[in-house]
Amino acid sequence: MENKGILCVVSGFSGAGKGTVMKALLEKYPSQYALSVSATTRAPREGEEEGVAYFFKTQEEFQRMIEEDALIEYAGYVNHYYGTPRAYVESEMAAGRDVILEIEIQGALKVKEKFPEAVLLFIMPPTAEELKRRLVGRGTEDMATIEARLARASEEAAGMEQYDYIVVNDRLEACVEELHQIMISEHHRTGRNIEEIHKIREELKRFSKGE
Amino acid sequence: MENKGILCVVSGFSGAGKGTVMKALLEKYPSQYALSVSATTRAPREGEEEGVAYFFKTQEEFQRMIEEDALIEYAGYVNHYYGTPRAYVESEMAAGRDVILEIEIQGALKVKEKFPEAVLLFIMPPTAEELKRRLVGRGTEDMATIEARLARASEEAAGMEQYDYIVVNDRLEACVEELHQIMISEHHRTGRNIEEIHKIREELKRFSKGE
Repeated sequence: MENKGILCVVSGFSGAGKGTVMKALLEKYPSQYALSVSATTRAPREGEEEGVAYFFKTQEEFQRMIEEDALIEYAGYVNHYYGTPRAYVESEMAAGRDVILEIEIQGALKVKEKFPEAVLLFIMPPTAEELKRRLVGRGTEDMATIEARLARASEEAAGMEQYDYIVVNDRLEACVEELHQIMISEHHRTGRNIEEIHKIREELKRFSKGE
Repeated sequence: MENKGILCVVSGFSGAGKGTVMKALLEKYPSQYALSVSATTRAPREGEEEGVAYFFKTQEEFQRMIEEDALIEYAGYVNHYYGTPRAYVESEMAAGRDVILEIEIQGALKVKEKFPEAVLLFIMPPTAEELKRRLVGRGTEDMATIEARLARASEEAAGMEQYDYIVVNDRLEACVEELHQIMISEHHRTGRNIEEIHKIREELKRFSKGE
């Protein structure tokens, strides 16, 4: 089938295990997927490496990227900007890799608007109870914070229908395989194989005339 | 994910190996798939069993099925009618099995119109040359007949874009797995899991209020 990579947006509630799933997917299929690294104007936290966690930019640099259309999407959260640099995404897709953007729903919907052929995946926990259990299990947050996170998840859930696929993260290994199979299946979509269809059609026409 | 079966239409050029692929898919995953058996007004050929190859109907019986809306789709080919009985399709889908209709493009498009949530799959050979080679290799037809078949394939290829997925039948085992993975992925589509989405949304809302 076609060799061009697919733009793939992954979102999910905090606590759904999105980061772990992405890490496992990239480790298992390093030649098929590339993870987009966001640019941000916020300062690096301890241990955050340039180009790994984020590309760290000044306000001026970020502003220039916006003006030069060098970002696929960007959004402001709490005084800082976050965005997806275009160059990396495009070069990886051209090299045949599916590029994963791990972004939130606002960004996801902007990407879908600009790139209707992008695939939007939403990772969710098996149940709301399980999500609550996982958040409580971390033992790092008080009940008010956990309830705030659940309220946030509830808000995010309002946009779930706008995603293309829902994947339940119950067992890590199974979830990784499901994501991978969805992406493989997407490569078989008719709309992603128009050139190949035209080619076989032309050949059939010639052959049927005895050429 | 959701338990309701999906209506799945499979088409492909004669010589693409569609029948072999379907047989292998059903043998490998007997509990997930059910093959719809068409009704027809043509007479049974030697060895064709009622309810296996076809449900054989008189013109009057077939006409009554049309009037009673007992067929999902039907079409006339060379003096005879062929159609898909509704009852079997609906009961198998309700039992959670994906029901496969192996029909031609006209029927496929009628099904998609009535059931927009149906999945349309087109099986094609790796190349037009390979299709020609397979037809010639059968050794049962003269060149004029083979060219007529290729002309027919060329006509059918005109509608390929209307299908959802293209699957290349190069190696049987790989083709069966691709079809299966596409169907598994389709079960993860947001639109097929609306109830589950509503459920988790409601639960999250309750939990975020400390309930």
